[in-house]
Amino acid sequence: MTSEFDLIKQHFIRPHRHTASSADLGIGDDAALMHVSNGMQLAVSTDMLVAGTHFLPDCAAYDIGWKALAVNISDMAAMGAQAKWATMAIALPTQLAKNQAWLSEFSAGFFACAHQFCIDLIGGDTTRGPLNISITIMGEVPIGAALRRDGAKAGDDIWVSGSLGDAALALAIMQKRYTINNHWLEDELSKWLPSLNRPQPRVALGLALRGLAHSCIDISDGLLADLGHILAASHLSATIQLEQLPISFYNKIHLHELPIQHCVLAGGDDYELCFTAPKSAHNAVNAIGKIQNLSLTCIGQTSALNFVHDAVKNEAGKSIDSNVHIFYKNKPLMMTNKGFNHFG
Amino acid sequence: MTSEFDLIKQHFIRPHRHTASSADLGIGDDAALMHVSNGMQLAVSTDMLVAGTHFLPDCAAYDIGWKALAVNISDMAAMGAQAKWATMAIALPTQLAKNQAWLSEFSAGFFACAHQFCIDLIGGDTTRGPLNISITIMGEVPIGAALRRDGAKAGDDIWVSGSLGDAALALAIMQKRYTINNHWLEDELSKWLPSLNRPQPRVALGLALRGLAHSCIDISDGLLADLGHILAASHLSATIQLEQLPISFYNKIHLHELPIQHCVLAGGDDYELCFTAPKSAHNAVNAIGKIQNLSLTCIGQTSALNFVHDAVKNEAGKSIDSNVHIFYKNKPLMMTNKGFNHFG
Repeated sequence: MTSEFDLIKQHFIRPHRHTASSADLGIGDDAALMHVSNGMQLAVSTDMLVAGTHFLPDCAAYDIGWKALAVNISDMAAMGAQAKWATMAIALPTQLAKNQAWLSEFSAGFFACAHQFCIDLIGGDTTRGPLNISITIMGEVPIGAALRRDGAKAGDDIWVSGSLGDAALALAIMQKRYTINNHWLEDELSKWLPSLNRPQPRVALGLALRGLAHSCIDISDGLLADLGHILAASHLSATIQLEQLPISFYNKIHLHELPIQHCVLAGGDDYELCFTAPKSAHNAVNAIGKIQNLSLTCIGQTSALNFVHDAVKNEAGKSIDSNVHIFYKNKPLMMTNKGFNHFG
Repeated sequence: MTSEFDLIKQHFIRPHRHTASSADLGIGDDAALMHVSNGMQLAVSTDMLVAGTHFLPDCAAYDIGWKALAVNISDMAAMGAQAKWATMAIALPTQLAKNQAWLSEFSAGFFACAHQFCIDLIGGDTTRGPLNISITIMGEVPIGAALRRDGAKAGDDIWVSGSLGDAALALAIMQKRYTINNHWLEDELSKWLPSLNRPQPRVALGLALRGLAHSCIDISDGLLADLGHILAASHLSATIQLEQLPISFYNKIHLHELPIQHCVLAGGDDYELCFTAPKSAHNAVNAIGKIQNLSLTCIGQTSALNFVHDAVKNEAGKSIDSNVHIFYKNKPLMMTNKGFNHFG
């Protein structure tokens, strides 16, 4: 069987790329050494992916490798940070540690993502155990320029990039929790699966939003949960219109179905950015979308924390367990499940 | 059941300490923000601990929390870096996520270690899954001052801190792979168990060795394997005397037993530092040991890579699969197992 050291050498050490992100000392010592540029803050985030919780057990190794890094890069994007370095700790069951084809595919997916986003893998740990991939990502952001959750102001526009709910719908179909007519399945599932398996972190958007957005988060646990984090940190409430959300054609015409509403609002795994910006930035945000060929949609507005819409006040006997007021066909929508919560 | 967010709030967020290691922005956003001091390199390392592989399934939660952080700090010590920040990703089985007593104890052990070594927990991830703790540690070291593996020179003295083999022997006894006479057991096991469960990373030693040691590593996989990494990176061989190793009284009088030799040379989990330094530094190293009240022992010397001791040449039919030549009672010792290898 391949030893721990051979396994690292064979699959996880790639030639030094000699780019701006290169570490001073990479894999192979007790620690990696890097220099953080003058005037920059170090941004650090960590995400752990577990088989069965974050990806289906039969998920392609390439996709697992891609997604494990991509979801971490997405956190850097949400801070407006330039991702530069990553460490990866991986626990492998004995049969996967012996499976050279699986390891090659996994590493190919990981490094394809690393290459696209100019990330250097600077350290790691491999060990025996149930499949678990834990990545820590590090990046740089000019001092004071980070896009935080706590900067939103009352009256901000709320924006989201890309399209919501595709990854959650693909997962629901794969897990047979949602059935879809065959003539849709062939056409659409092939469009939604990449959202689930190979999310595209919005790095360029995050960088462009520095100095423009008041707050930003990446949507990993569903729009309601993640927008809720911005609102909680900024002490605000928000009103959004379900019909205004950027969603696929299928979701649009099935938006009256509860499972579709759930996928779009609380499905998770979107890895789009949700951000707030002053109304005065409206044209500038639209211009960024055009330059980056990325759909950016204004989905609602923030309000003071104690704001309660008249229409909601009148819904006697119902309470909104959230500071997000959702309207659908001009009526308030009540949600019981705010999003995907790993211990919920 | 406690939600992911409540669990983090309750067990993993401690009041800001307002020390030099404090982050600019800690837990609670997409990423933490820190500043790396002028003239410093960032040092980063990651270690993953899995139940059954790195600790016994019935290990006390406090000890798991302590050790998970301590083994990471040990990597900073081995680089001569000042550890400052850590992220922790943890996968918890459902029954542990519900077990408030376990979580409290785990977090108490983690923060006791963090407090002793002035580490700020700046980010993390909690998720469902088989118990797995993955920590990334970050620290600072003056540019060019890191203690690397590749700096050893031929003729260097080889030193180790503390005592070797205690943790491995305690584990062997606990797992009933080694039996020990009862009158020893009561006296000695209580001395050895802390080595296994609450290792003390040698941070002060690592800092003191800057500018003095040519190379350094922490002994996590056993002396032979880890000294072997220094030798491989520095293109050297080494000769050590088994009798000169710093070992407990019990190990000393049982050193003729193969299991004891294995514990001492290849047992792993020591988390002592192994370093090389020029002969001219002998007195300075001894002075550090006195100041820090820490045993520092010279165990042998490095030589050119192609050096083969006469006594080994004459051992026809035997080969040393290592560039470490070990002598015991003036005769070369042949080892088949160089150390603990997670996929061996």
